[in-house]
Amino acid sequence: LTDKFERVCIIGVGLIGGSMALGMRKLKLAHEIIGLGRRIENLKQAKKLKIIDDWSLKPEQAVKNAELIILATPMGAMPELVKSIAQNFKPKVILTDVGSTKLKMIEKILPLIDEKVDFVPAHPIAGREKTGAKYADANLFKNHWTIITPTQRSSKKGVERIKRLWQALGAKVAIMNPKEHDEILAYISHLPHLVAYGLVSTIWNQEQALPVLRFSAGGFKDFIRIAGSSPEMWRDICLDNKEMIFKALNQYQNQLEKLKQMIVKEDGGGLEKIFYESKKVKEKVEKQNG
Amino acid sequence: LTDKFERVCIIGVGLIGGSMALGMRKLKLAHEIIGLGRRIENLKQAKKLKIIDDWSLKPEQAVKNAELIILATPMGAMPELVKSIAQNFKPKVILTDVGSTKLKMIEKILPLIDEKVDFVPAHPIAGREKTGAKYADANLFKNHWTIITPTQRSSKKGVERIKRLWQALGAKVAIMNPKEHDEILAYISHLPHLVAYGLVSTIWNQEQALPVLRFSAGGFKDFIRIAGSSPEMWRDICLDNKEMIFKALNQYQNQLEKLKQMIVKEDGGGLEKIFYESKKVKEKVEKQNG
Repeated sequence: LTDKFERVCIIGVGLIGGSMALGMRKLKLAHEIIGLGRRIENLKQAKKLKIIDDWSLKPEQAVKNAELIILATPMGAMPELVKSIAQNFKPKVILTDVGSTKLKMIEKILPLIDEKVDFVPAHPIAGREKTGAKYADANLFKNHWTIITPTQRSSKKGVERIKRLWQALGAKVAIMNPKEHDEILAYISHLPHLVAYGLVSTIWNQEQALPVLRFSAGGFKDFIRIAGSSPEMWRDICLDNKEMIFKALNQYQNQLEKLKQMIVKEDGGGLEKIFYESKKVKEKVEKQNG
Repeated sequence: LTDKFERVCIIGVGLIGGSMALGMRKLKLAHEIIGLGRRIENLKQAKKLKIIDDWSLKPEQAVKNAELIILATPMGAMPELVKSIAQNFKPKVILTDVGSTKLKMIEKILPLIDEKVDFVPAHPIAGREKTGAKYADANLFKNHWTIITPTQRSSKKGVERIKRLWQALGAKVAIMNPKEHDEILAYISHLPHLVAYGLVSTIWNQEQALPVLRFSAGGFKDFIRIAGSSPEMWRDICLDNKEMIFKALNQYQNQLEKLKQMIVKEDGGGLEKIFYESKKVKEKVEKQNG
């Protein structure tokens, strides 16, 4: 609580950046929050909604006196952006981000920044099916995990401040290395999305031969919602986390083939065993979430 | 509305059978509804909750004067059950069911029943993640599809009465042949469940090496919920609809392999195209659902 930031720059005032800004303002965690981005209408709306104190279209100027800079643009845009603003960073600035993958992003950013920059990457695992500042929600991160992945350029104090920031926003915080983060996310987020994309496109291809979509029920509607996420974001994630996703996808393909062979061989006992296991996983997760 | 049933027997007073009974009672669509089953506690509770008028543990006796018999037990139990009660059917009784697959079930039931039985299979596509009469809900079928699949033993009048029954319960009704039903359901229901079972078991296997479940977020939680459905029911569905599921699974495996190859080759454009297509499917389905 003695830990207020002076000038904070949030680059990319979308759902995530906007929700961070709104939360920080409500909790008075910053003296001044400047929103930066490319879409003037979005920034104006963010100011009108009191999500940010002010805005600018010129990050290279606006970051000059910032004590904390948050990269909340699409991941693909981050390296180019950092390149254009890094020479204006104040010494000991804390630079953080909210990207969905970590290893490749860090590899790209590290050579672009000075040794004096306190670079503390983070990833809030929160829903992202809507986009834009107008959906900003100060409670978006509440009870969700944020994973911090320190680098060789993260100071102990920087990690501590980013950790306290996320805890103040209501998140559960875990600290791990970037590789472990990317591996975990490959299983619990990237693989499920690819599985959903594969399913929706299979059914869409089938739709030409036999109209099935009109009968879509409960379970399938969840897949459709998942597969409605931002195409650009998921393209970037697939390319950035290629190796881990490849590993997880292979395991999944083997498991699915095993299920198919059980169906072909009419192995009811084998199927039932796997289905029971899944039911137990459900009960385990429900218990864990209280 | 002049179409009230006299004595109705519902065999298997679980979520589906119980919800039908409750709806029919509320709408006064039957003079008397008898619940039949094996678990006396469940039947007693159903009577107490005014879901059924009375109950019996002896279907072979109770069906004697029934005008409508609804099979709402697990699919695997239906043929044996019909065998044990068919000799007591009243002529022109309407026999219907609520099973999730149709072709194999009909093949098994037809040789067991008299020519005078009016056999009109139906399948309400409604959530089934909870089980037992205590979850009965008269609105369970509202705005969901019920598919009726007439057989060579369905009279025009019988189909019409079952159709009106489901419409009265709030369902949208489609009439098609059993093969078409099974093909459609393979895509929109059976494939999604297998995909979810495959995913949950893959992640569960991984959990031994690297604990990932504690970080499970939005999308994956939907998979977990889907994969928590009744193992026995899904075993029966997989065995009964083997051919159609095999066809749908093969198409899905090909599509997933295509996605994997795009990731391996870092074909961002190809990935984005498939992801955009899925987003359009989402918008199409949302529009269709109003």
